[in-house]
Amino acid sequence: MKKNTKQRILAVGAQLIHHKGFNHTGIKEILDEAHVPKGSFYFYFKNKEDLGLQVIDFFNRQFLDMAHETLSDKSIPPLKRLANRFDYFIQLFNQMDYSCGCPIGNLAQEMGDLNDAFSAKLKEAMDLIADSYKKVLLEAQNTNDISATIDIDETAAFIVSSWHGALIRMKVEKSAQPLESHKRFILNHILQT
Amino acid sequence: MKKNTKQRILAVGAQLIHHKGFNHTGIKEILDEAHVPKGSFYFYFKNKEDLGLQVIDFFNRQFLDMAHETLSDKSIPPLKRLANRFDYFIQLFNQMDYSCGCPIGNLAQEMGDLNDAFSAKLKEAMDLIADSYKKVLLEAQNTNDISATIDIDETAAFIVSSWHGALIRMKVEKSAQPLESHKRFILNHILQT
Repeated sequence: MKKNTKQRILAVGAQLIHHKGFNHTGIKEILDEAHVPKGSFYFYFKNKEDLGLQVIDFFNRQFLDMAHETLSDKSIPPLKRLANRFDYFIQLFNQMDYSCGCPIGNLAQEMGDLNDAFSAKLKEAMDLIADSYKKVLLEAQNTNDISATIDIDETAAFIVSSWHGALIRMKVEKSAQPLESHKRFILNHILQT
Repeated sequence: MKKNTKQRILAVGAQLIHHKGFNHTGIKEILDEAHVPKGSFYFYFKNKEDLGLQVIDFFNRQFLDMAHETLSDKSIPPLKRLANRFDYFIQLFNQMDYSCGCPIGNLAQEMGDLNDAFSAKLKEAMDLIADSYKKVLLEAQNTNDISATIDIDETAAFIVSSWHGALIRMKVEKSAQPLESHKRFILNHILQT
């Protein structure tokens, strides 16, 4: 029961922070929406920062599950898996009316200068995202689908960062175009070197 | 004198919003730092949203001046100008300890889902930034420095969006590496198609 309450606070907190940002989301708002009495917040979390850091872990677990689902099926050629993954997210954001963007990218932008604990955890989260791409790129290199000259580490990091940028543009444009464009530049240019 | 007061509010507001975000910056904080009595805010601005929208224009003017300075000297070959421009910003962010990022990208991420007036103005601002790149890419195409097959519109938009993503990574990593990497991928891969 306790675990359920904490998970509910985390899930609602994650949703509100994803939509409105960390600083713009209040503890009271989260607890009201999670139907949890105010007094019990400090039973589960040291403070709002502690909640924020645990929300990053929450997003990360969610992300790694999705990455596993879309990137690890070895019966599909690696570059096709990568394309499928981009399409999966394009479809997901279509269902969300091109709102919110990536919670990890959002928090990095919002909190990168304001809180060192957030920065460290967000950098770690971005590295984990990049790792999921690295594995697929390495497979593609082993099958000669991409050139052996491609720097896998740098390319994986660029896929993540340019994706975060495409999501920013998506949010003001409310269309899939920046995401489709990102997919084309990565698959047809960067990986065809 | 009136104009000076308004400009001071805008300049201080721009600085605080650039560092902390729009929602995390209070009117009182801006006026205190600008040494302007609280009552006079509504003489210059309808409300906080109005200030935010005028801050976007303020950033935009600043950006276009910088773009003109770094991109329009026709005695320098177009791709060299583009490289110089990336270096100019890498140097600028080095001086700022890799903080803040691009105010237009930041506000797009923060306000894209929350305020349609912001979104429209930010999309316009991003298009102006892309236009400054388009001019240089067109010149490079005319001098055969880049292929005639390159889609100038899409490439210019991608330079802007992937730059915004690189800045997000910069903020948590506190290093020039994501910006250097962005420069390499644009100049050595995307434009060498």
